[in-house]
Amino acid sequence: LSINGKDKIKPQEVSRVVSAFKNATPQSRTFTQGAPIQWEERNVTAIKGPGGKWMIPPDAKESMDKNKIGLKGPLKTPIAAGHPSMNLLLRKTFDLYANVRPCVSIEGYKTPYTDVNLVTIRENTEGEYSGIEHVIVDGVVQSIKLITEQASQRIAEYAFEYARNNQRASVTAVHKANIMRMSDGLFLRKCREAAEKHRDVKFTEMYLDTVCLNMVQDPTQFDVLVMPNLYGDILSDLCAGLIGGLGVTPSGNIGANGVAIFESVHGTAPDIAGKDMANPTALLLSAVMMLRHMGLHGHAKKIEAACFDTIRDEKVRTQDLGGNSKCSEFTDAICQRVRDMD
Amino acid sequence: LSINGKDKIKPQEVSRVVSAFKNATPQSRTFTQGAPIQWEERNVTAIKGPGGKWMIPPDAKESMDKNKIGLKGPLKTPIAAGHPSMNLLLRKTFDLYANVRPCVSIEGYKTPYTDVNLVTIRENTEGEYSGIEHVIVDGVVQSIKLITEQASQRIAEYAFEYARNNQRASVTAVHKANIMRMSDGLFLRKCREAAEKHRDVKFTEMYLDTVCLNMVQDPTQFDVLVMPNLYGDILSDLCAGLIGGLGVTPSGNIGANGVAIFESVHGTAPDIAGKDMANPTALLLSAVMMLRHMGLHGHAKKIEAACFDTIRDEKVRTQDLGGNSKCSEFTDAICQRVRDMD
Ligand SMILES: CC(C)[C@H](C(=O)O)[C@@H](O)C(=O)O
Ligand SMILES: CC(C)[C@H](C(=O)O)[C@@H](O)C(=O)O
Repeated sequence: LSINGKDKIKPQEVSRVVSAFKNATPQSRTFTQGAPIQWEERNVTAIKGPGGKWMIPPDAKESMDKNKIGLKGPLKTPIAAGHPSMNLLLRKTFDLYANVRPCVSIEGYKTPYTDVNLVTIRENTEGEYSGIEHVIVDGVVQSIKLITEQASQRIAEYAFEYARNNQRASVTAVHKANIMRMSDGLFLRKCREAAEKHRDVKFTEMYLDTVCLNMVQDPTQFDVLVMPNLYGDILSDLCAGLIGGLGVTPSGNIGANGVAIFESVHGTAPDIAGKDMANPTALLLSAVMMLRHMGLHGHAKKIEAACFDTIRDEKVRTQDLGGNSKCSEFTDAICQRVRDMD
Repeated sequence: LSINGKDKIKPQEVSRVVSAFKNATPQSRTFTQGAPIQWEERNVTAIKGPGGKWMIPPDAKESMDKNKIGLKGPLKTPIAAGHPSMNLLLRKTFDLYANVRPCVSIEGYKTPYTDVNLVTIRENTEGEYSGIEHVIVDGVVQSIKLITEQASQRIAEYAFEYARNNQRASVTAVHKANIMRMSDGLFLRKCREAAEKHRDVKFTEMYLDTVCLNMVQDPTQFDVLVMPNLYGDILSDLCAGLIGGLGVTPSGNIGANGVAIFESVHGTAPDIAGKDMANPTALLLSAVMMLRHMGLHGHAKKIEAACFDTIRDEKVRTQDLGGNSKCSEFTDAICQRVRDMD
């Protein structure tokens, strides 16, 4: 699972990343084109700890605690009574409070939309994902959406800092404070306060339904969007659809003090598992985000360019991108381009 | 607000519908082209009742109780402490449990999508719209999503009956039962039970995020979709965006025993109010839905055809449809076509 970005090592010493999505792992070879990374592979499938609580295995936890940065392939949540979603468990275990999903149109990959260039920033720890639910009386169920000042403030701050650090002009807070006046109201208030502190970044607020409507009509009007947990789940998938789907959209789960896990947004795609058909772009671009997070900008740029060039070139593409190449062929083509740049 | 569909009267006796969206009212003249309707105009702006509770005025309530069927233009919720959303108050007052929003591509009105032909059916009384919120401690807020067996069952039943009555082949239940296991789980269970009873209609279930993703990639794969309240709010706006926006999407709020209020999904559009610029199509098509609900299929068909023909013809269109006609000119053109059919 996790990697150590501190040791500078030679390419041939690099080992591969663990991934439950085996067809996607070949792409990890593409970083070995010079990035000073040593991989520590860990299995993160949850185990039952003392007291029956599900937890990620201690050696995986230790690895992350030490290295701080991880890359993960899609994980299947085992079907077991009370088993938590693996994704949620990881986000919770390492308090990865910001889920960052850039959506950028890929040149040469046609969709009805061009020039999409936005980032959804999703509060990743609470909201509708609190996991608190009750049966009140027979046939009456409550789920609790939990919004706290602290989590709202920290995600709002993160969004504005992200905008500033990434030369982005505006932040839109997405909410339904007309309906959830107290909870989304609190979230919105914290966004307004952060906006006051970051006057160099333009701030707007919009209802979630209005954002969905405008998004499919003209996504180019959006830049950075910040929102509670569930809205981010929805909106990030919607935006992924605009640029070509989950095969090409990366993400980062960011915590405090540099802790972060990067992952593709897509699932394990069991229907194509083992067929050397998967599109590794999402995981590859997640790795590129990771390299940037580690300050390895040169490597990030090279690998990203190799990936986009390969897609633009149209000769070697996976099936979901309209080509007929295998995952391994597509990956090899990207690796070759990285080597050619050296 | 409400109309009486029982008395057959002559066109010249028809009076207009009350609408806060004044520019949209001219379209109501288009039903006067022969539909046997008498209008009873009522102001529904909420008042403070005994005990300080907001309620719709008694004469509006009585009118609806008597006539059962209403048509409303967009309403502005007054800015007053604790004032409920007017839309929500109406849905609640008359227990309008099903919010039905057909989204059908309009020939001649170009968007990136063609052949969209789906209907979102939204549970309209509970879920995230329960209005129950608490401050737990300072800075910690809970909003309650309320899901009941009764409301889930009735909306699921409604969706399958709608599909059957409208010659639609499939119903998709939209949920996040992977996250809200108990609440969305209950909703989903009721959909499955309804599916068991209606084996002639195909049933599928999908995560909300997956629906959003697939919707923007290929909306033609969807038919009838049924879902909890908030998801319907989001998805119906998204779908409206695919066919041209809120200017062209009608809706019906359906209750028990034939009670129903039809309305455009859009708001009051204060930026263009009073400029004779609004597109009356959404309200007109809502009226067409209403005529069908009343069994006035011939009138419905004629007015709908006149509207679509006018748009397809391209000569007279409002600005949002890419033309430069006024609302009144567009409405007159539709009325003329209805007259020409007689
Ligand atoms: C797998 C699921 C629990 C998850 C979510 O709902 O957050 C996924 O959809 C995502 O967006 O990462
Ligand atoms: C105006 C608002 C309260 C309403 C809602 O959220 O339901 C609207 O968006 C709708 O879809 O009818």
